[in-house]
Amino acid sequence: MKREETMRSYLNLGHVTIERVSPQIDGGRYRPKAVVGDSVPVQADIIRDGPDLLLCVIRYKGPGDARWSEAPMRLLENDRYGGEFTPTSIGRYKFTIEAWTDHFGTWARALARRVEVGQDVELELEEGRLLLEKHLRLVSATDRKKLARALEVISAGGGSTSGGFKDKRVAALLDPGLRDIMRARHSREGASTYRPALELRVDRERARTGAWYEFFPRSTGRKGSHGTFVTSARLLPKIAAMGFDVVYLPPIHPIGVTNRKGKNNSLQAGPTDVGVPWAIGAPEGGHATVHPQLGTIKDFDDFAAAANKLGIEVALDFAIQCSPDHPWVKEHPEWFHHRPDGTIKYAENPPKKYQDVYPINFDTDNARELWDSLKQIVDFWISHGVKIFRVDNPHTKPFQFWEWLIAAVQEERPEVIFLAEAFTRPKVMRNLAKLGFSQSYTYFTWRNSKWEIIEYLTELTQSEMALYYRPNFFVNTQDILHEYLQIGGPPAFKIRLVLAGLLSPTYGVYSGFEFFENVPREPGTEEYLNSEKYELRSRDYAAENTLMPYISQINEIRRKYPPLGQFTNLHFHSADTDSMLAFSKSSPGADPILVVVNLNPFRWEECTVHLDLPQLGLDSSHPFEVQDLITGASYLWHGADNYVKLDPWREPAHIFVVRK
Amino acid sequence: MKREETMRSYLNLGHVTIERVSPQIDGGRYRPKAVVGDSVPVQADIIRDGPDLLLCVIRYKGPGDARWSEAPMRLLENDRYGGEFTPTSIGRYKFTIEAWTDHFGTWARALARRVEVGQDVELELEEGRLLLEKHLRLVSATDRKKLARALEVISAGGGSTSGGFKDKRVAALLDPGLRDIMRARHSREGASTYRPALELRVDRERARTGAWYEFFPRSTGRKGSHGTFVTSARLLPKIAAMGFDVVYLPPIHPIGVTNRKGKNNSLQAGPTDVGVPWAIGAPEGGHATVHPQLGTIKDFDDFAAAANKLGIEVALDFAIQCSPDHPWVKEHPEWFHHRPDGTIKYAENPPKKYQDVYPINFDTDNARELWDSLKQIVDFWISHGVKIFRVDNPHTKPFQFWEWLIAAVQEERPEVIFLAEAFTRPKVMRNLAKLGFSQSYTYFTWRNSKWEIIEYLTELTQSEMALYYRPNFFVNTQDILHEYLQIGGPPAFKIRLVLAGLLSPTYGVYSGFEFFENVPREPGTEEYLNSEKYELRSRDYAAENTLMPYISQINEIRRKYPPLGQFTNLHFHSADTDSMLAFSKSSPGADPILVVVNLNPFRWEECTVHLDLPQLGLDSSHPFEVQDLITGASYLWHGADNYVKLDPWREPAHIFVVRK
Repeated sequence: MKREETMRSYLNLGHVTIERVSPQIDGGRYRPKAVVGDSVPVQADIIRDGPDLLLCVIRYKGPGDARWSEAPMRLLENDRYGGEFTPTSIGRYKFTIEAWTDHFGTWARALARRVEVGQDVELELEEGRLLLEKHLRLVSATDRKKLARALEVISAGGGSTSGGFKDKRVAALLDPGLRDIMRARHSREGASTYRPALELRVDRERARTGAWYEFFPRSTGRKGSHGTFVTSARLLPKIAAMGFDVVYLPPIHPIGVTNRKGKNNSLQAGPTDVGVPWAIGAPEGGHATVHPQLGTIKDFDDFAAAANKLGIEVALDFAIQCSPDHPWVKEHPEWFHHRPDGTIKYAENPPKKYQDVYPINFDTDNARELWDSLKQIVDFWISHGVKIFRVDNPHTKPFQFWEWLIAAVQEERPEVIFLAEAFTRPKVMRNLAKLGFSQSYTYFTWRNSKWEIIEYLTELTQSEMALYYRPNFFVNTQDILHEYLQIGGPPAFKIRLVLAGLLSPTYGVYSGFEFFENVPREPGTEEYLNSEKYELRSRDYAAENTLMPYISQINEIRRKYPPLGQFTNLHFHSADTDSMLAFSKSSPGADPILVVVNLNPFRWEECTVHLDLPQLGLDSSHPFEVQDLITGASYLWHGADNYVKLDPWREPAHIFVVRK
Repeated sequence: MKREETMRSYLNLGHVTIERVSPQIDGGRYRPKAVVGDSVPVQADIIRDGPDLLLCVIRYKGPGDARWSEAPMRLLENDRYGGEFTPTSIGRYKFTIEAWTDHFGTWARALARRVEVGQDVELELEEGRLLLEKHLRLVSATDRKKLARALEVISAGGGSTSGGFKDKRVAALLDPGLRDIMRARHSREGASTYRPALELRVDRERARTGAWYEFFPRSTGRKGSHGTFVTSARLLPKIAAMGFDVVYLPPIHPIGVTNRKGKNNSLQAGPTDVGVPWAIGAPEGGHATVHPQLGTIKDFDDFAAAANKLGIEVALDFAIQCSPDHPWVKEHPEWFHHRPDGTIKYAENPPKKYQDVYPINFDTDNARELWDSLKQIVDFWISHGVKIFRVDNPHTKPFQFWEWLIAAVQEERPEVIFLAEAFTRPKVMRNLAKLGFSQSYTYFTWRNSKWEIIEYLTELTQSEMALYYRPNFFVNTQDILHEYLQIGGPPAFKIRLVLAGLLSPTYGVYSGFEFFENVPREPGTEEYLNSEKYELRSRDYAAENTLMPYISQINEIRRKYPPLGQFTNLHFHSADTDSMLAFSKSSPGADPILVVVNLNPFRWEECTVHLDLPQLGLDSSHPFEVQDLITGASYLWHGADNYVKLDPWREPAHIFVVRK
């Protein structure tokens, strides 16, 4: 019986084998990512036994679709076929490939070969007639008429095929119109389908493209007073004027008092110290509560509405950890790690200690309620209009929790975006992206030299990571002030902004960057002096000589030129010094953008840039115009090799639109 | 309910994620291949959330094993772990990876870090004590004693840990012996297992390594008479003396008379013409019958027994096609293609026609009985001691048929080997190997220049094909007399023999090669003149000046030096002329073999060979001896660069054993 079953399963397979379907991650274990409106390329090795021809199509089905749609595939080379389809809604798509024997095409090819060498084809014509007759009842009324007409010609015809291709019957049977009818849908007897169907995660555009601005709402108060959602809302027009799409707020919840940290991470907090926003929870409430000093939940709603009016989305921090004063500590002691002396274990990375934060014990016996409670937090903020979550340290919580949470949330609200703030080992960061995070922090901050940038960006855009890893290039964060910014002066800030904003479709700026804040707590650290993590920090947004106008320009260019909204279209060009980086982005129907950056913030550099002209859609026989979108200056360039000089104290980068 | 189910499935996953397990083909769809006694390397990316340490093992289970065995894994780099296991029986192995959190190791690492920086560790020691106590009841009696002893030390101990690592309690807890106990089998709470387990096809050594000799039994008669199994048996000692392991016989079944082909593929067969052995079937019987002129099935059994006595296995041809006189044509007309005029369609590749052969219609409604009948043929010959089948043109039969047949046969008789005789497009040839063929014909015959050989062998040994594609390098076949042999004279035969026999662990010679037969039917064809496919062809095995002594030498070298029995150990060395090829094979515990071949059959060549010394286990500071296994001459070489001159009319190749 078992053997009989086995044989049947093989007997039912079609003649055609479909293999190595792309895009695909780890044998279909994870979903590649796309954005609504993308043209998603699908390829496969498709083979059939024997010499018969085959036909194949992509089949795909969106989240709301009742039926499968189809897109054509064509032979690329060496038994590899390719096509593409365009997802039009957000959510999970399924896609697969169907392939079948092209009986009529195979027969027609043999007929043509026989006619070519002058063989008698009477029997073949009869076979053709039978094929047509068989299909008569399967096709549409219109097609049936055409088949009937061809059948008439064949039945009426000569009686000798010495006429070769001029024989009316041969001509009727080899007619391309007839071939198309005979190859249509009804001809798929014994078709093979690639199983199981693969899945694709389709997001809205913001999952891939956007300019982020991070600020601490509590720092927006006047003259050093504690800021609120109301004072934060007053900052929004400035942020909009800089051209940002998303504001990201560190945790806005009540902050614990027990073991609260003082300024510059000191163990002794004074009575006026505001604490670390990531030490979440106080008697007033936990993750689904707003810090009383920031206002009410209504104030938050108003702030979010004001942002939306300006075309800005609010992203919240989701940090799964508790201050010792979080209600859960009493309500759910089983969710924490207990020590033999009865105390709860605080966070540490020996010898570093974080006494104001209790990590969650995911190995609790009550994990089910914990997971549900965490999802309820996300759901709560979604109900307040939040659709983007920046997740704090996801790599210190179980992978399977994230896979479940993101899937569960997106099943109900497919528009929700999760950003993974994981700075850890490469395979861990990749896994978080594979299991569902919409976008991810990166090593960008630590990639400053030319070879580092080229190597890293090549990995991100050319390796398999391009299928699932969407980078969010932050130029700085509240934790990371890179040495390059500490010592490079304002040119360094411009350079890093150009790189982040133009290399990656999503990038971010943490407030203070626009004021060239560059003082570390002490030499050799990436921590800010007087870090906003521990104290209020008011800033003068009306100040002169800030980076704000330049940020506005960069974001305006990003919005205006479609190639900058994409990532895998990045292409590096050769520049004959290690101090200059040249890259371009192109997309169909748009003028390419070409960027040349002087990576040396200290002095001018010059070099010859060797353009890959075909990549830019150019050839060496025609001069072309490049217009600098920052200065407005235009240059007429000839051929691949062009001289460039850049003074970082004036303009560290040419951002050219290339006009053919 | 559905959501609840989903959550449970995620909750039950362990903390550890296991990915990208190798060896693996197409996400586990096909089985990689190994040979009994191989050390099979297994690797995976293994990650865990957070900073905790992890442990992992390979788990594997052979076809006869009641329980899973384990092999250790170690961290290679960047979250990739590796280990190996050695299959000891033939059949399908399962293997997977199990990984879990190293709770004790993580705890011990933290303890050591704290002690290092002088932190108080009283609480940690208490935690350690509790960990030990928890494990007390889980370990063996011996280990329990050791744990109890450590617990005594901890309980008795000082009361202050200012002693740092010298504190007796700290020392007891960080003892490596204790760590090993605490990391053993019982500690695997919450372990993750890679699922589904992967499979490995394990064959006997002959599936990878062997020298094949093909001959037509009917050609072994005296003075042009029709040969028999008895006359064939008389040839066996000569074949054994040449050192072959396998004799492959073209079909030995009755040959059809209808449309029988004459000499040199002529359409008119004379009364004495013997026909093509692949036109299988006559009134006497079909595929499970021997040709009456060759003898009886008893004669075949005797022939096979005689071969076995000489250490030679008999491989039969399995060609699924019928002459018009095959009993199936009447018994099972539904298994053939019928034309509108009632005739059966013969084989053709327009405009080429094979009127003496009817292909099988696998799309018959009676496929089930067809498949069973075909398996019965294989089973019949297995019952007559045949364990190797050379399958004729498998690529013109459905892939799923082969996948079923090979699996069904090997489930009962795992020692059976199938060789795919497919000369077609690369992906089709690869698929046949992936779906189960033990070994495969190759493009070797058409790879004659240095770059062709290096490119092709690099693909076979270094790409994913190395996991499943076992080449059988035939120097010639009854269908392929390459131009290189037609024009290159005896040196060309020696060169190709050296390449086939030493590049690939399995290779083959079709009879006539040893007599330098090199005349094509006409210029521009690879067909032999007076091809044995259509007529008897007697040969004088007692002749002088044949290649037989050289073949004996090559096969003797192959048997004596273990590195030549393997394939992926092939390494090319640089030689500074396109006419010379240098390669080596090494295996642990054996002297490497280094081969330098002059690919130009027409004249001597000289060059400097630049050896990759580390590959040969050598360094440039010590001279080393290379001994030519053909001539016996020894040379003392110094360093990487060595002069070589080879005259193809004397010896076209150095086959050196390298002595360190």
